[in-house]
Amino acid sequence: MNFPNGDIFLGEIIGTAILILFGAGVCAAITLNHSKAQNSGWVVIAFGWGFGVLAGAYTAAPLSGGHINPAVTVGIAVQSGENWDKVPVYLAGQLLGAMLGAVLAWLVYYAQFSANRDRDTATPTLGIFSTIPEIRSPVANLVTEIIATVALVLPILAFGLTTGLGESGALILVVALLVVGIGLSLGGPTGYAINPARDLGPRIVHALLPIPNKGSSDWGYSWVPVVGPLIGGVLAALVYGLAF
Amino acid sequence: MNFPNGDIFLGEIIGTAILILFGAGVCAAITLNHSKAQNSGWVVIAFGWGFGVLAGAYTAAPLSGGHINPAVTVGIAVQSGENWDKVPVYLAGQLLGAMLGAVLAWLVYYAQFSANRDRDTATPTLGIFSTIPEIRSPVANLVTEIIATVALVLPILAFGLTTGLGESGALILVVALLVVGIGLSLGGPTGYAINPARDLGPRIVHALLPIPNKGSSDWGYSWVPVVGPLIGGVLAALVYGLAF
Amino acid sequence: MNFPNGDIFLGEIIGTAILILFGAGVCAAITLNHSKAQNSGWVVIAFGWGFGVLAGAYTAAPLSGGHINPAVTVGIAVQSGENWDKVPVYLAGQLLGAMLGAVLAWLVYYAQFSANRDRDTATPTLGIFSTIPEIRSPVANLVTEIIATVALVLPILAFGLTTGLGESGALILVVALLVVGIGLSLGGPTGYAINPARDLGPRIVHALLPIPNKGSSDWGYSWVPVVGPLIGGVLAALVYGLAF
Amino acid sequence: MNFPNGDIFLGEIIGTAILILFGAGVCAAITLNHSKAQNSGWVVIAFGWGFGVLAGAYTAAPLSGGHINPAVTVGIAVQSGENWDKVPVYLAGQLLGAMLGAVLAWLVYYAQFSANRDRDTATPTLGIFSTIPEIRSPVANLVTEIIATVALVLPILAFGLTTGLGESGALILVVALLVVGIGLSLGGPTGYAINPARDLGPRIVHALLPIPNKGSSDWGYSWVPVVGPLIGGVLAALVYGLAF
Repeated sequence: MNFPNGDIFLGEIIGTAILILFGAGVCAAITLNHSKAQNSGWVVIAFGWGFGVLAGAYTAAPLSGGHINPAVTVGIAVQSGENWDKVPVYLAGQLLGAMLGAVLAWLVYYAQFSANRDRDTATPTLGIFSTIPEIRSPVANLVTEIIATVALVLPILAFGLTTGLGESGALILVVALLVVGIGLSLGGPTGYAINPARDLGPRIVHALLPIPNKGSSDWGYSWVPVVGPLIGGVLAALVYGLAF
Repeated sequence: MNFPNGDIFLGEIIGTAILILFGAGVCAAITLNHSKAQNSGWVVIAFGWGFGVLAGAYTAAPLSGGHINPAVTVGIAVQSGENWDKVPVYLAGQLLGAMLGAVLAWLVYYAQFSANRDRDTATPTLGIFSTIPEIRSPVANLVTEIIATVALVLPILAFGLTTGLGESGALILVVALLVVGIGLSLGGPTGYAINPARDLGPRIVHALLPIPNKGSSDWGYSWVPVVGPLIGGVLAALVYGLAF
Repeated sequence: MNFPNGDIFLGEIIGTAILILFGAGVCAAITLNHSKAQNSGWVVIAFGWGFGVLAGAYTAAPLSGGHINPAVTVGIAVQSGENWDKVPVYLAGQLLGAMLGAVLAWLVYYAQFSANRDRDTATPTLGIFSTIPEIRSPVANLVTEIIATVALVLPILAFGLTTGLGESGALILVVALLVVGIGLSLGGPTGYAINPARDLGPRIVHALLPIPNKGSSDWGYSWVPVVGPLIGGVLAALVYGLAF
Repeated sequence: MNFPNGDIFLGEIIGTAILILFGAGVCAAITLNHSKAQNSGWVVIAFGWGFGVLAGAYTAAPLSGGHINPAVTVGIAVQSGENWDKVPVYLAGQLLGAMLGAVLAWLVYYAQFSANRDRDTATPTLGIFSTIPEIRSPVANLVTEIIATVALVLPILAFGLTTGLGESGALILVVALLVVGIGLSLGGPTGYAINPARDLGPRIVHALLPIPNKGSSDWGYSWVPVVGPLIGGVLAALVYGLAF
């Protein structure tokens, strides 16, 4: 692209759109009636999101490095102390990409969403787009998101130090499996946003789309999965700076 | 082989046959009575098809590059603008291979198919060979297949840009995990053909084989999983051309 | 070791023992009462065996190349036409290793096997050691084992042609995932021996061990999972010779 | 760090903390009420722990080599005969890290642990922190832990001999999948400690934390998952010394 940092902007839009297409997609697959994968379990959720990272980050990597997560972008900026001017471009691309991905996932499951018209069998739809805590407790939910995001960003910063992982092209594969692990292990309480764009973008789309029986977009909770992961990203960078 | 592009033809036959052997195999494993894997869930379907890509594409790679999917072949041809003369050879190999693979899967589960003779316990068999939408809605089904195929072909085109992924031999492994992810996330509505040969070849075989209680081969739907993935492959190449 | 081909012999004993420790182990984990993994499903079986290949083959590789399967050894010998004098050493190591691994798995689950004393809750035990067809039909079972073994050995022979897979050390990882895929897709009818040593060695051990309520060792079926995989290995080598 | 072997100490603290955060996390995810992953099955446990190894060992690797397990440290020391002076630093870091990780997992699931206050629905909590045998039989449990640890440490020692696995950075990925396999196959009887720090550190934390209805910390069993893995690590080194 011809405007400054256009590649970053475009790469993050495409990569984050793919991430959310897979992520919102797998939540739709599990949740909605008339989906072949309905009720197929937590292991499907965790691998679906993890391989969404694989797909999105590898695709975005040649253009933008494949952050596809504001917590990663902010963590890297704090750690390196550089490129703060590019951070807004990353974040804008990530938010737009997340919104685009949510729309794409809605299109993939359009017939299923339409069938949600029947009040007797309708299922809540917000959980397809954004995270909902099992127990609503802002401080506890925030702590969960902070620690889970540290468990994402600190390893990502450290993985770069392992000789060969970048050269062999396996770095993003390992990050994708890391995200599978975070889902399996740390996703139980809040549904692991660990990415502000992943939660906020689809929530905006949920509020806008004409989905039958869609229920509330739950804006009261929406700050937790934005603030928590950002704190987690900064914290990971600080721990990294001290230890490595 | 001694005739022009014989290696491509042979490679695609073998690779696509292996893909469908695994793919139709896992659907038979889940569906049929007297199978140890009966009702073992969506995660088994998604990994079975994904590791079928791994097996088929790695095996075909030295001969043909391992496309084993007309949407990939067409996507690469549109993107590069080259080798259009080889496209028919690829497609013919893929369709023949898919038919061969379906026959092999039927042979593997021959005793189970024979036991389907009992009308009281017989299960429908088309879903073992070809995709069936959960909600029949041609436009929505087509959109699902188009987006899911873009989510396959766009990353494949972009993965080639990641330094080291080809050199380390991990490229096809990453594509295989991508296909696992597509199954988990985007397979709910239509069963994710994302490959015209994967759907059409086994459907022809289903129509021909003497399977007890086999039910309809559903030719009315058969154009969707052919046209959708081809549009998706072209669309992915166009997006790639604009963005990368 | 100081006698000829001692490294091969030792490597195959250790590697096949690890394979069967994991494989018989996962079958015990799923089957026996008082196991945390009881009834945890086909996906556990398939990944347990696949990662048993990963563990056993990587461990054996520096000593023997890590065949740990007579069908692989015979397939490679037919394909290369070389090293026929080493084949008996491989096979002897594989059979002894498989027996050792079955004993180790029995020791790991010793308390569970002992608890099988209670006739009312006792479960059959042969399926932990060896394969049992769901539908007993020698010809169909043989065909299943032949095709499934071709789907193992033909890709293994072809994987060696993919540049970089050996150099990066990922070759055995890819073979392990291939075995996961064979289990998921082709294991339904017979339980996928695809390895004569894997079936015969543990069957001998089952016949010898003092397991309460152990049931028959089913020698009438025992030739199928030996002969089928050997035919499959030879067939894979012939197809490879024609196509590659 | 400025004191001798400070990098090792710090690396093992961080790496083992991440391991236990994921491992205790996935046990909490499966066990506790109000967790999205409750009762999601053994496959979730095994992959959660395995990807905890991936996260912890890759993060620790640049500082300490990423042992994060006393059985690995002792096994390597016995095998090489070197660096015995560093062993206490490794062990201290591992135990402290395991305790830190258990506290972090408790914080992630704080709201769920608090909800365990209700006696009628309360679930036992020790299994989240430490291993509990299904059948209490010290000798049998010890044998299980010894063999499972040999199946961990012997392959780790041998993997280093595979050309390319270190260079491509995939070594720890393969070890992580090995640990998934151990969980699937050998975890049924005792819950596979295979790591003294993994069991003892969280058990201490379980004894100290104010968890409602937490139940006994079961100190009577606590020596088995410490002694068994240490014996297994030494045994693996001896087998390695004889065979390789």
